[in-house]
Amino acid sequence: MRNAPPPTLASAAAPSAATVRDAVGDVLNGIRLVDHHAHSVFADDLDDAGFETALSESGAPLRRGATAFDSQLGFAIRRICAPVLGLEPFAAPEVYLRRRRELGTPEATRRLLDASGVDEVLVDGGYAPESLLGEAQLFAFGLRIRPIVRLEAVAEASAAAASDASGFMAELDRRLDETRATAAGYKTVAAYRTGLALPPARPTDREVTAAAARWLARLAESGAPPRLTDQVLIRHLIWWAIDAGAVLQVHAGFGDSDLRLAGADPLLLQPLIARSAGSDATIALLHCYPFERAAGFLCHTYPHVVMDVGLAVSHLGAAATGVVARSLELAPFSAVLFSTDAWGLPERYAVGARLWREAMTDVLAGFVQAGRCSLDDAARVAKMIGRENAARIYG
Amino acid sequence: MRNAPPPTLASAAAPSAATVRDAVGDVLNGIRLVDHHAHSVFADDLDDAGFETALSESGAPLRRGATAFDSQLGFAIRRICAPVLGLEPFAAPEVYLRRRRELGTPEATRRLLDASGVDEVLVDGGYAPESLLGEAQLFAFGLRIRPIVRLEAVAEASAAAASDASGFMAELDRRLDETRATAAGYKTVAAYRTGLALPPARPTDREVTAAAARWLARLAESGAPPRLTDQVLIRHLIWWAIDAGAVLQVHAGFGDSDLRLAGADPLLLQPLIARSAGSDATIALLHCYPFERAAGFLCHTYPHVVMDVGLAVSHLGAAATGVVARSLELAPFSAVLFSTDAWGLPERYAVGARLWREAMTDVLAGFVQAGRCSLDDAARVAKMIGRENAARIYG
Amino acid sequence: MRNAPPPTLASAAAPSAATVRDAVGDVLNGIRLVDHHAHSVFADDLDDAGFETALSESGAPLRRGATAFDSQLGFAIRRICAPVLGLEPFAAPEVYLRRRRELGTPEATRRLLDASGVDEVLVDGGYAPESLLGEAQLFAFGLRIRPIVRLEAVAEASAAAASDASGFMAELDRRLDETRATAAGYKTVAAYRTGLALPPARPTDREVTAAAARWLARLAESGAPPRLTDQVLIRHLIWWAIDAGAVLQVHAGFGDSDLRLAGADPLLLQPLIARSAGSDATIALLHCYPFERAAGFLCHTYPHVVMDVGLAVSHLGAAATGVVARSLELAPFSAVLFSTDAWGLPERYAVGARLWREAMTDVLAGFVQAGRCSLDDAARVAKMIGRENAARIYG
Repeated sequence: MRNAPPPTLASAAAPSAATVRDAVGDVLNGIRLVDHHAHSVFADDLDDAGFETALSESGAPLRRGATAFDSQLGFAIRRICAPVLGLEPFAAPEVYLRRRRELGTPEATRRLLDASGVDEVLVDGGYAPESLLGEAQLFAFGLRIRPIVRLEAVAEASAAAASDASGFMAELDRRLDETRATAAGYKTVAAYRTGLALPPARPTDREVTAAAARWLARLAESGAPPRLTDQVLIRHLIWWAIDAGAVLQVHAGFGDSDLRLAGADPLLLQPLIARSAGSDATIALLHCYPFERAAGFLCHTYPHVVMDVGLAVSHLGAAATGVVARSLELAPFSAVLFSTDAWGLPERYAVGARLWREAMTDVLAGFVQAGRCSLDDAARVAKMIGRENAARIYG
Repeated sequence: MRNAPPPTLASAAAPSAATVRDAVGDVLNGIRLVDHHAHSVFADDLDDAGFETALSESGAPLRRGATAFDSQLGFAIRRICAPVLGLEPFAAPEVYLRRRRELGTPEATRRLLDASGVDEVLVDGGYAPESLLGEAQLFAFGLRIRPIVRLEAVAEASAAAASDASGFMAELDRRLDETRATAAGYKTVAAYRTGLALPPARPTDREVTAAAARWLARLAESGAPPRLTDQVLIRHLIWWAIDAGAVLQVHAGFGDSDLRLAGADPLLLQPLIARSAGSDATIALLHCYPFERAAGFLCHTYPHVVMDVGLAVSHLGAAATGVVARSLELAPFSAVLFSTDAWGLPERYAVGARLWREAMTDVLAGFVQAGRCSLDDAARVAKMIGRENAARIYG
Repeated sequence: MRNAPPPTLASAAAPSAATVRDAVGDVLNGIRLVDHHAHSVFADDLDDAGFETALSESGAPLRRGATAFDSQLGFAIRRICAPVLGLEPFAAPEVYLRRRRELGTPEATRRLLDASGVDEVLVDGGYAPESLLGEAQLFAFGLRIRPIVRLEAVAEASAAAASDASGFMAELDRRLDETRATAAGYKTVAAYRTGLALPPARPTDREVTAAAARWLARLAESGAPPRLTDQVLIRHLIWWAIDAGAVLQVHAGFGDSDLRLAGADPLLLQPLIARSAGSDATIALLHCYPFERAAGFLCHTYPHVVMDVGLAVSHLGAAATGVVARSLELAPFSAVLFSTDAWGLPERYAVGARLWREAMTDVLAGFVQAGRCSLDDAARVAKMIGRENAARIYG
């Protein structure tokens, strides 16, 4: 004979839902965030069309008869950033843009970065740096900065500086070695260049040299600036970082229009992740939307894998709670990180941080209100993800 | 030094949750919907087994020891349609079927179409039209009708009327040209016939003619009625519609049992979508379950792509809120459309429209209640998706 | 002219949300569950590190600087199992482990199995049985036990007992035939061995014999214990079960680190499922995370397919409501089953059953509170999934 199942937790003495929410919200709002993956912000003023274009990852001309402000990110900026610039929440787009011009880019940037509550940023400087503030200027806004080195950019600079394959290899080795002193970690954009369905094996020296020779020959012929899309060389860079015991950030999931999303599913990387198990490296799966559950599986299965859901949080706006919730399913709480993946608009820092605090509050307060998590554990998880995991992983 | 993050929105002066929900619900209930993709309804009476079979997309015999009424759609019909026929909500299946027979098919159909609040329907007449009411009869029920032309059906009719490849090509050109005067848009069922992993290039005339010759030879040999599964010819049809600057509806995701769902992932179409960027065409991804997030990514990335989640809404019933919520993540709000994808049962109009109104109310009222969207914006988004986006896109 | 849509259900006379929740919860808590897929529990005492390792499916060493208790399953055990062992909910891990040692493994096991409210278990004894209690011992704890036969294990035992292909085939036939008298069903771990992208056809005798010869030759050469990874032989086993009209459990989705998750998507099995339609067999898709919606589509489309979301429920803990909700989308309610997939830790029975009762209460009470499902229907669905569907399907 079986007994009845145990009673559910008594809810009589439990604090009210509003009290729980306030308590969890206070914890989240108090975290000085470490943003483990973002970029710098625009150096120059934007015109209105430029601002609107920067609201999406598309890069394409705007939709006919529509405005990019009619999107989750557009709504989130009007809600969250308008008050930071001294307006009512949900100010109309034209009002927002006018106020931003009145304040000027430096003052708007200062206010928006300040409002984010982000304390430290690991900055990937490898994408379109010419339009962005340099690290020193970003630092002047009060952010602590640590560099993430984009591996493909190092290879491309090495190719531009070399005349043949052996020269390239020597230059690449030298430049990679140089980064060791300062890099907090490395990043690969293999998802954009080859997709993540990479053969797992470390390529041999012979394969790498042959690939380099092919690439340099093509470059010499075309005269175009180097853009690395060779799978062997990208795997060589990835294995260099793994063998160095570094944190290797891997873009996965949603990104800009250069990406074929089907090739950015982190499950495609499972063979390579399995092959690198037992190394001293950490694989950080970046952003991952809409493959967060797959990324969580990889974090569950391999203790050297971590993840974030950064980019999606900003673009999902009022719907961000779900993507944050999905990052708290299968991944151990020690394997989840905070990022904004902000690029260009300083609004992306303010929005990315605020939306994450709100979404984490929604999710964790929901767990506590349902009696499924203690308030202490919820607070502990929030601090791990907002700051402490990054401190542990990036040292 | 960083400041504390900004306070969350004050909730003191906010209207109550119930008031917000009522206000959003009133907006949704007041929209005279444009259903941008549906089919006609059964012309004849159904027996009970026929009704039950029509509750699923399976087409297969019923599950042993079970009833198809024990499904989300079955529950939704008992809840939503029973009162329309003068019964209590949640009437038992046998009671519902008896009442429907008492009223007769025309009266039941009239009530159910009326109850939907759908004003205008873009009708794909290309699937099993012999069992359905003609357009004039559907119009007599008070629906404004505009035709969507199913491209594969045009090709199949052309093949039936032609004796060789050049005759087929001439016939196809002529028939396609004829549709231009009246078609609101076109539709491809490539997902059913070849899957969506189509090579992106516009096929050459030579390739098309060769494919036509092969198909006609096979048809002559088999004597079976034409059913187009040739990838080259299907791509030819798709590019015809793109070059015409038309709206091209593409079935994606969940459909009937003829479908291999893995081949209906809209991400498989990304190369072709990318290739058609900059054309005057619009690609409308239909239904998309469970790939709504992928469809939203395509809408975000390409300004000539739009989407709906129609078919799933009806089949998900009480769980429809989630699929509607996912359509409001990455897609700009100007890129989302309403549809029922009703076919056969007029219940599908009543249920598809009611569930969509409820789900949109759930999602948008939730955003407003959380202080994450203004009531005005919520109302505006509801009207865009329920009617205005279709008016803009289909002209 | 269209009329206004029908009014939503009046909520005036509706029972309060708390009353509904209590009523639904009472139904769920009263179900004596049939767990249609689980394993036995550890026979011996575990040390603390062994317990922590058993908290994940990883099998890998623990994450540096972290504890496996900081996971949804870890939190769920501290919440649900601590009171079963006489502690406060959310007891610290070290307190929990100490109390467990004080009670001793048999007493802790007895309490945890009792607390689950599981009445009957279909036991897959094919994974690492040497570390687990035998069926008779498990039965002594009050569980009714029925065996599920793991097909690959039968083939491996047959290979170990045979010296050539024809001997193997005869041995396999004999052993499979023997299982018919007692097996409640069969299971394949093809997802682990070859992935689910199996050619759908029943292999010919000639193909099977050739594959057997190759396998036995490799075994003779390597001397390693047999581990079946041959696709032809696995398909032979699958078709044997289908032809026998049996219930064939197919592992799909998330599992241990031996799995490539991309190859465990149940959609990969659609061609084989379609091919087996019309047979007397039932295909039971096990666990399925994060592919529950795909599994639901297969259940919707093929009346001989059923599914569960067992393993994920335990590992998702406070987030389990979502995975249970997704199993109630497209699948008919007659096609969904309960399982824990417990293995090793008896905590997995207690947690799997409790989390499922809570999640079903969340989902069904939510439907009823929103007026979208009657209380009677909610109760009926709960009982179908918790017990009656299994009784119907496994006889």
